[in-house]
Amino acid sequence: MTAAVLAPLQCRVDRVTMQHPGDVAAVRRLFDEGKVAAERVIAIFGKTEGNGGVNDFTRSYAVNTLQLLLSEKLGCSVDAVSPRIALVMSGGTEGGLSPHFLVFSIDLATLPPSGASALAIGRASTRDFLPEEIGRSEQVEETAAAVRRAMMSARIGDEVDVHYVQVKCPLLTNVRVSDAVHRGKTVVTAETYKSMAYSRGASALGVAVALGEVDIKAFSDPAIGNDVSLWSGRASTSAGIELMCNEVVVLGNSALWSGDLQIAHAVMRDALDLTAVQTVLEDLQIPASRQIDVADAARICAVLAKAEPSRDGMIRDRRHTMLDDSDISSTRHARALVGGVIAGLLGQTDLFVSGGAEHQGPDGGGPIAIIARRRG
Amino acid sequence: MTAAVLAPLQCRVDRVTMQHPGDVAAVRRLFDEGKVAAERVIAIFGKTEGNGGVNDFTRSYAVNTLQLLLSEKLGCSVDAVSPRIALVMSGGTEGGLSPHFLVFSIDLATLPPSGASALAIGRASTRDFLPEEIGRSEQVEETAAAVRRAMMSARIGDEVDVHYVQVKCPLLTNVRVSDAVHRGKTVVTAETYKSMAYSRGASALGVAVALGEVDIKAFSDPAIGNDVSLWSGRASTSAGIELMCNEVVVLGNSALWSGDLQIAHAVMRDALDLTAVQTVLEDLQIPASRQIDVADAARICAVLAKAEPSRDGMIRDRRHTMLDDSDISSTRHARALVGGVIAGLLGQTDLFVSGGAEHQGPDGGGPIAIIARRRG
Amino acid sequence: MTAAVLAPLQCRVDRVTMQHPGDVAAVRRLFDEGKVAAERVIAIFGKTEGNGGVNDFTRSYAVNTLQLLLSEKLGCSVDAVSPRIALVMSGGTEGGLSPHFLVFSIDLATLPPSGASALAIGRASTRDFLPEEIGRSEQVEETAAAVRRAMMSARIGDEVDVHYVQVKCPLLTNVRVSDAVHRGKTVVTAETYKSMAYSRGASALGVAVALGEVDIKAFSDPAIGNDVSLWSGRASTSAGIELMCNEVVVLGNSALWSGDLQIAHAVMRDALDLTAVQTVLEDLQIPASRQIDVADAARICAVLAKAEPSRDGMIRDRRHTMLDDSDISSTRHARALVGGVIAGLLGQTDLFVSGGAEHQGPDGGGPIAIIARRRG
Amino acid sequence: MTAAVLAPLQCRVDRVTMQHPGDVAAVRRLFDEGKVAAERVIAIFGKTEGNGGVNDFTRSYAVNTLQLLLSEKLGCSVDAVSPRIALVMSGGTEGGLSPHFLVFSIDLATLPPSGASALAIGRASTRDFLPEEIGRSEQVEETAAAVRRAMMSARIGDEVDVHYVQVKCPLLTNVRVSDAVHRGKTVVTAETYKSMAYSRGASALGVAVALGEVDIKAFSDPAIGNDVSLWSGRASTSAGIELMCNEVVVLGNSALWSGDLQIAHAVMRDALDLTAVQTVLEDLQIPASRQIDVADAARICAVLAKAEPSRDGMIRDRRHTMLDDSDISSTRHARALVGGVIAGLLGQTDLFVSGGAEHQGPDGGGPIAIIARRRG
Repeated sequence: MTAAVLAPLQCRVDRVTMQHPGDVAAVRRLFDEGKVAAERVIAIFGKTEGNGGVNDFTRSYAVNTLQLLLSEKLGCSVDAVSPRIALVMSGGTEGGLSPHFLVFSIDLATLPPSGASALAIGRASTRDFLPEEIGRSEQVEETAAAVRRAMMSARIGDEVDVHYVQVKCPLLTNVRVSDAVHRGKTVVTAETYKSMAYSRGASALGVAVALGEVDIKAFSDPAIGNDVSLWSGRASTSAGIELMCNEVVVLGNSALWSGDLQIAHAVMRDALDLTAVQTVLEDLQIPASRQIDVADAARICAVLAKAEPSRDGMIRDRRHTMLDDSDISSTRHARALVGGVIAGLLGQTDLFVSGGAEHQGPDGGGPIAIIARRRG
Repeated sequence: MTAAVLAPLQCRVDRVTMQHPGDVAAVRRLFDEGKVAAERVIAIFGKTEGNGGVNDFTRSYAVNTLQLLLSEKLGCSVDAVSPRIALVMSGGTEGGLSPHFLVFSIDLATLPPSGASALAIGRASTRDFLPEEIGRSEQVEETAAAVRRAMMSARIGDEVDVHYVQVKCPLLTNVRVSDAVHRGKTVVTAETYKSMAYSRGASALGVAVALGEVDIKAFSDPAIGNDVSLWSGRASTSAGIELMCNEVVVLGNSALWSGDLQIAHAVMRDALDLTAVQTVLEDLQIPASRQIDVADAARICAVLAKAEPSRDGMIRDRRHTMLDDSDISSTRHARALVGGVIAGLLGQTDLFVSGGAEHQGPDGGGPIAIIARRRG
Repeated sequence: MTAAVLAPLQCRVDRVTMQHPGDVAAVRRLFDEGKVAAERVIAIFGKTEGNGGVNDFTRSYAVNTLQLLLSEKLGCSVDAVSPRIALVMSGGTEGGLSPHFLVFSIDLATLPPSGASALAIGRASTRDFLPEEIGRSEQVEETAAAVRRAMMSARIGDEVDVHYVQVKCPLLTNVRVSDAVHRGKTVVTAETYKSMAYSRGASALGVAVALGEVDIKAFSDPAIGNDVSLWSGRASTSAGIELMCNEVVVLGNSALWSGDLQIAHAVMRDALDLTAVQTVLEDLQIPASRQIDVADAARICAVLAKAEPSRDGMIRDRRHTMLDDSDISSTRHARALVGGVIAGLLGQTDLFVSGGAEHQGPDGGGPIAIIARRRG
Repeated sequence: MTAAVLAPLQCRVDRVTMQHPGDVAAVRRLFDEGKVAAERVIAIFGKTEGNGGVNDFTRSYAVNTLQLLLSEKLGCSVDAVSPRIALVMSGGTEGGLSPHFLVFSIDLATLPPSGASALAIGRASTRDFLPEEIGRSEQVEETAAAVRRAMMSARIGDEVDVHYVQVKCPLLTNVRVSDAVHRGKTVVTAETYKSMAYSRGASALGVAVALGEVDIKAFSDPAIGNDVSLWSGRASTSAGIELMCNEVVVLGNSALWSGDLQIAHAVMRDALDLTAVQTVLEDLQIPASRQIDVADAARICAVLAKAEPSRDGMIRDRRHTMLDDSDISSTRHARALVGGVIAGLLGQTDLFVSGGAEHQGPDGGGPIAIIARRRG
């Protein structure tokens, strides 16, 4: 596979607002105004204003509304949309976070690759998992293989060029647990809510394995969801009830792609790691010793980060109260905090900050990736 | 009044942790280890882990526990404590904010004033208000006069040297409303919760008038609580049921005080105004183009800020969801956001960020003041 | 209009479960199994598991999903559904309340009217209101007229035979307020949230006027939303952003209808008024000195009630904490309480208990109506 | 032990209101008006208006305030109060529940026992537990022994005369877990929150064993906290950080006591078990086919019940949403529901309904006990 024989591609990212979780008018406008062809959309991420918990229906409400729009634009059935386009919703806009969609589409490049690497995107799925595989090494291994396929699809050869991997993974329900039990198998947990954490954790470790961040021989099943020393600096995983496989979207840079977008990432060591954010910005040639200026802010297309409370209840030797709050769940506090830290530097609040960061960055920290236009 | 005839004073600020709202062990240690004499404590501010709303009992729990400790140390009755020491609690440690007390005490200076100005503190109270005066011009005028007396008590002659004014003000209860009505008077509102906002607003305007930020002739009663163009950049006010007067604590710098502490302030124009925080740090000779380093962080003794959601539902043209959230009150979101913005730069979370910012900074923004030790 | 010349009708009520707000599978089954013809559905009420507040998107999620199903079954566009079928969602299943749909449909009667009166249903709408009319006497009068038309549609001649009137009414948005202001008009309030209460209140008073419960000459605009002595014992109103008129559904008994369903109602004087519930049951020939038995429970098709906290903070001289709770909104507490009182007697939790009871029953109480099958 | 040689005692129960968790004015009045002698108080239960969760500080706030009052009245130190008087606070007044204290005191009887049995109260404690014993059979056995001693103290010889056993039990903290680990021991769980459930469960099983409800040989450690078929119909247990032993208060009827108070109990099979409440009332000669009348309501001195969501997410085949609600914890929903069911029949809301019902009644149900005055 060489660049010569591949049609030159470029990836486009549109960040658009929503007025409520069922409002896809701004996405519709992208289509109606000819900016984006529905056929070329590869993924849509959405930050919706729910609680991010079990009863956060804003995610499925947004997915359903997007599917309706896309089925109309693609001329396919509603059910045929998701196999074609990854729809990844993350609930929770605590603090000042602003609900928005990120529409990723691929175009034939108007210009050949410039030699500089440009934003590349690829997608792959695992086979469907058996319930007993979720949260265990089978899920890790299959996810790692899918990440490698998605890298191929993104024309990225070197793991170092991967900056962000979004994984949507399954969870266990009572029915699924029963199915396994009836076949004489055990599951990692019988509780739906906990299974989400195990599935997210195994998926993140799959990314870590694929990217060479963690050696698959270095851990076994009991470490999944428990050993906080194992993590990927580029994984972002979320669990959903609507699928039994892992869907993988890889974002990176590749010299085989055209366009003026680039992605960079870093790992926030804890929730206050402003230096990590500055590092990402500087990788993108955005001066960051002050809040970035309006022109640079306009160059930013997407900000993707994970947030979670540190397990020891402390941030730099000061007690936090996230884990003991029976009124507001800890992930809501964590998103608000990390959202504030990032928004302070970027001067913008439409940030895709999501919670549930098992094996995604160190305990209390998490990956952050930014996609920006090159300085014109 | 000249420096020559005044005993040289210095103000000490101790920022100590609490494990829960009833935990004053760290304050007790200040006394027991001889660091602070209870007789010299002038005010204690506390950031407690409640919801900051109507049923936030963490504030009164902390006050009661502090009164018990202080009555023991001062050898006075529990009821005699509050007239001697201003106890100001602010509930809400959303995001990563860390519960803590700020103990302000005055010592005879070990050294004469160096010529450089140092942190100065003063205190005054208004007379008790009648219910019908709360939220109206009488409260504004009396507060302005009390601020001027507190400045005298702080030996600050020029308004420009005042950097932060904390006011504790009364609210209306059913009993108080009835009292006014029985005397043929009207009150600004019959609802307790709203009366808190009016009282905070009138108190903040009193500070603004005293500091020359707003001309008292420029507005009349209907503007109180409503005209967001009128504000103080140095006021922080909170309403409590336990008093009928306004208690005022003024913090500023004065050449008549000794010691190595200084205070500076700025006004955050909106919740993302990182530049305002950097300005304050630079006024304190703390480099702020990166997250401040550990040595500089250790110089910081107190961070005092106000937070509130912008009324138009927008932050820099992006929608926020604080005002429409029926699960989490908007002030909780706002504290989490502003706490994150500030913590990102300071690398610390024990910040006294409080909500309810009527006439305290512009709509959606608020004052921020920092007390720090001079570079050694 | 006489019974002789009218085709005999009967009203059918199906109470079906939902697994989440987007789950209309049980409604679909009614159609697919031939139990209900979509063309004959007149209204669907839904109790969804949101917070019942401003950001409760479970209501619109359910409406959208129902519209999609109904457009498919009716062979019409999605937009054409709501003018044909009243879709009324109420958010909030606090305590043990169970999410469910109530599907009201009309069939040609299989038997002529028996002489006994049977459940009757009718529907009507007002003209669209101007923003400045909302919450004011114009809305009251137009609603009263629409209730009378809906009674005609339900073939009910006597107000005493009306037992429940559901009204869906508009609210004010910034755009609507601006429109009025630009035309030199004032609105009852500029705040969206408050406008919902005024609109519900005016609509309930419209019902009260139509049913002869309140004399329209006895009050003027300032009483709307404020004078708790004015109320309907049969109104249930809810505000929604999607319409500018009032939609009215009247439920009652009529000798011109066939079938074995009947409706009865009473007014709960406060949240603990178990006697009112027993009265309704006894009107339906259901013994209620104990929790009703399984056979009688199976006869019940729908339970419709309003709940709200008493404004004085007391229930029978004991303090309640609903109004002071900054973590859980008072309407959520009220639904949980009233749901518990009713469920205790009925032994079932799929009750349509809704909040926001301005002028719907006395302060702290509300109407309750039950539809049940005649004893076989 | 015979009645002849024992001084005749009688138990008094005062149910008094509180305006907030720090308000003990009504308890003080009992002392100041000579109704109750502080020396004779044996226990105070309190229902406070917190969230009943980890960060519910209303409980410790109330305890601290009570200790202060009692130390003043008893002439002892604050620390000496709790060993003398059991102070048991339960947070959460969801729905319409009303905050209140229940003051249990013992008096010398004014009249000899009448022959009819009267309310009897007794108290005992276990030794301090080692961390590794909590949630395990050692805690079960020691609790059972303490219940038997408390029965002796209450002069109750037959288990059938015991109607309610309140247990306050310890929990695990990081420090306590470390202590066990350092001694080479394992603990039942390292998580504080979960340890509360295990400790409550083991304590309830201890009551069940003492009262002959469960055979101690029928289960072993893994059943504790897991086997929902094992339960006491008379236990109510709550975990607190301030003790390492189990404190037991037994309430029952005994012919060796005087006075006109009696206690009865039943087990609610699920949250809607109104029949159980009626059974208790009828045991107390209170007609309950309607909401009880005002005269009978005035005879009731205390209502004690447990509430929890059923684990299968269903109430009588209808789905409840308590367990999936990430905004309001399930115990809050459960208290609101059970409070509503009971309040509907009793016409009063000052009910001590508490959550966390491991092994206290069947899954989704719980014990209910009522203390009432004999019909005069």
